[in-house]
Amino acid sequence: MASTTTYRRLLVLHNAFIVTMDPESRVFRRGAIAVEGDTIVAVGPSDEVLDKFSSAQLVDLQSQFLLPGFVNTHVHTSQQLGRGIADDVDLLTWLHRRIWPYESNMTPHDSYISTLLCGIELIHSGVTCFAEAGGQHVSGMARAVEELGLRACLAESIMDSGEGLPVAWANRTAQQCIQSQKELYKKHNNSAEGRIRIWFGIRQIMNSTDLLLKETRDAAKELKTGIQMHVAEIASENQHVASTRAVDHGTVAYLEKIKFLEDNLLAAHSVWVNEGEVHSLAKAGVKVSHCPAAAMHMLGFAPVREMLDAGVCVSLGTDGAPSNNRMSIVDEMYLASLINKGRDAFSKGACDPTALPAETILKMATINGAKSVLWDNEIGSLEIGKKADMIVVNPSLWSMVPLHDCISSLVYCMRSENIVSVMCDGRWIMKDNKILTVDEKEVISMAKQASAELIKRAGIQMPSRMNIL
Amino acid sequence: MASTTTYRRLLVLHNAFIVTMDPESRVFRRGAIAVEGDTIVAVGPSDEVLDKFSSAQLVDLQSQFLLPGFVNTHVHTSQQLGRGIADDVDLLTWLHRRIWPYESNMTPHDSYISTLLCGIELIHSGVTCFAEAGGQHVSGMARAVEELGLRACLAESIMDSGEGLPVAWANRTAQQCIQSQKELYKKHNNSAEGRIRIWFGIRQIMNSTDLLLKETRDAAKELKTGIQMHVAEIASENQHVASTRAVDHGTVAYLEKIKFLEDNLLAAHSVWVNEGEVHSLAKAGVKVSHCPAAAMHMLGFAPVREMLDAGVCVSLGTDGAPSNNRMSIVDEMYLASLINKGRDAFSKGACDPTALPAETILKMATINGAKSVLWDNEIGSLEIGKKADMIVVNPSLWSMVPLHDCISSLVYCMRSENIVSVMCDGRWIMKDNKILTVDEKEVISMAKQASAELIKRAGIQMPSRMNIL
Repeated sequence: MASTTTYRRLLVLHNAFIVTMDPESRVFRRGAIAVEGDTIVAVGPSDEVLDKFSSAQLVDLQSQFLLPGFVNTHVHTSQQLGRGIADDVDLLTWLHRRIWPYESNMTPHDSYISTLLCGIELIHSGVTCFAEAGGQHVSGMARAVEELGLRACLAESIMDSGEGLPVAWANRTAQQCIQSQKELYKKHNNSAEGRIRIWFGIRQIMNSTDLLLKETRDAAKELKTGIQMHVAEIASENQHVASTRAVDHGTVAYLEKIKFLEDNLLAAHSVWVNEGEVHSLAKAGVKVSHCPAAAMHMLGFAPVREMLDAGVCVSLGTDGAPSNNRMSIVDEMYLASLINKGRDAFSKGACDPTALPAETILKMATINGAKSVLWDNEIGSLEIGKKADMIVVNPSLWSMVPLHDCISSLVYCMRSENIVSVMCDGRWIMKDNKILTVDEKEVISMAKQASAELIKRAGIQMPSRMNIL
Repeated sequence: MASTTTYRRLLVLHNAFIVTMDPESRVFRRGAIAVEGDTIVAVGPSDEVLDKFSSAQLVDLQSQFLLPGFVNTHVHTSQQLGRGIADDVDLLTWLHRRIWPYESNMTPHDSYISTLLCGIELIHSGVTCFAEAGGQHVSGMARAVEELGLRACLAESIMDSGEGLPVAWANRTAQQCIQSQKELYKKHNNSAEGRIRIWFGIRQIMNSTDLLLKETRDAAKELKTGIQMHVAEIASENQHVASTRAVDHGTVAYLEKIKFLEDNLLAAHSVWVNEGEVHSLAKAGVKVSHCPAAAMHMLGFAPVREMLDAGVCVSLGTDGAPSNNRMSIVDEMYLASLINKGRDAFSKGACDPTALPAETILKMATINGAKSVLWDNEIGSLEIGKKADMIVVNPSLWSMVPLHDCISSLVYCMRSENIVSVMCDGRWIMKDNKILTVDEKEVISMAKQASAELIKRAGIQMPSRMNIL
């Protein structure tokens, strides 16, 4: 009786500069990786791996770089069709006149198209796994993720209270919110050959009753899944929590008080946290998604170095298109470094160019990302037994030459142009800059139409700029 | 007798979304531009221009965007071969152990190769004109600029004093510095069909005697050219100036005292300037080059909004590769917006997402850039009589779709991928992403070799990162 494994394709990618991101931070100057089906079965020096797997299909990477796929731990895929609807406006206009009307008018088909379009940008920037920040119509997202060939933790946008919500959202109870997510879990968790997981969502504390928070915590624990929540985004959120929920500082202090901080919580942004709260996050094993562009655009400077020093697992996210516009973890790596080197200029009178060195940033984008989405047993580094989620980087383009420091060049010089091929779950989803799973031009064309109709339906008025004739 | 103008090629680029950046901020939804030789002879609605120039060679831009070429007002082209030699190190290591050894070991051929490599990156990111920040071997740079087809204001790196300088630089007098630059002016100013201008350079105040400053001011005035100088880069520069040069604040206050502030001075960075100094800059008509990435990496937050409000002409620069790594004005536009929106988070407790809106950033990268390099009578906007320096942007790629706000998308979404063609002085220097003036692969190959030899010659030791096997 033949083993089923004999039908699994055996592939060896060799002659590559491999940055494994494994616990020993091993880098193979001239390395190879063997992949059987969806799984890595060997990593090491090229000669050794080639000797051992002489019958495999060979791909000569010609000294290009091979890295684990990046993990984007906070992305609103539903908001991709709304890129550009809220540039240069204050936060209240952003939320009440642009984002809420936009999201509350989405159809399941819009969510599908939006996630397809977002997925194309994610793939071009080297992402193989993302955590949805909480959006509309999870079934639409799941269909898109399945087609794109990506890996994802999907979550619904969940609110059961709050002032001024759109009519369509205003009357949802905590129980309805939990019920809806349990059904999504049943329907989609572990679908797409295991590439999709369903998480629980909490939009933010000002839109959540205590009942919703506690039921979410318990349901996530019961289903052994994660919770994605926006936490301590702006200073006034903390002030609101302190004044209405009888706690001394803000959201993190309150979440600790009601025993919501656990190691399956992925807290997005977490900009306004004090020293005590940083230690609460570390102690509970809460993960933090740092979104540098959105932070600078609207929120503030998260104490990232302090969180890392305290032992918090900090990863990187792009946030949604209307908060950032560029949806690229490659750019977020560059920004995370710059912003955190520059932060000391205000408090201490000088930048610290040694803050968050390149190897730390690479960890945030890979293994810390995997830990943040509770999937580090299978992704986040190139190790035997892990899934074959990886990217090929061409370092010989104008943007990365010369290469005096290969590791730092991946953080400070690499651009999406350099990312030429992407594999997820053992399957090439982009090769030589061409996405193989969906028709990029067709998606762009569908997105143009769907987004124009959605903005019209939502009644969003854009101000004009300059003197357009 | 036939007029010489009959021999000048007449070209009409039509069916384009034209952002002119002219004084009325006109944008033509469906516009055309006629170019005769190196000069713009018509700008307007497509139909009108096509009617008037029916015999011209036509290029249908198929609704792509047409903008003035960007102006990079502070770039060390000599440092391109040193990209990555000084990542994640403190400022003293950066300067004394990496940059000075690197620069003082350059040959004229290295400067030529370095400028070629840098120019390739500039062209891919839409730059048609740059101001050299002051570097080695101006004749090497000039040769590269001529071949690349770019427009540039070149300057030598000038110092006549200071502690710990490399031996090769230590004994130059103010008179020798001035003499050298006058010779460069004579040799290269207005060369390359008028695309090259020679400026005076001052590296920074701590490497300049008063005699050098005054002679530079007078020589630049005599030759009617500009001065590029690093000004108020770090807080300790101001402290040094205050303690050694008897002035109450810092570099700007001192330069005002010795009557160095004039409208032909291009001050780079100008991070540490107080309110009075901002007004001194404005009053004197000094131009400021804001370099967001370098600022966040090493210097601090320049008071850009305050300078703009006070009437200072602020433009954008990339600085050199070891200060930034990415040499793209496209990225600097994005960063300038984010950093200046985020700056208020420290001082006021909340970001200001309305700060430096897209139209302001676009001005900084175009017409303010042209004013900063004293060339706005000929470049910086698309107007009749100006030089044909312009770029074609494809907005239908994954990075810019959907287009709800065309103007803001150019600042917040556009990436170098979107810049498909570049014209300088009426000549295509890049078309369909391919540089036409130099062989990109050959330059990259030469740069790899030259940079490896230079780093070895300079004795620069790089620390190792991770566990490289």
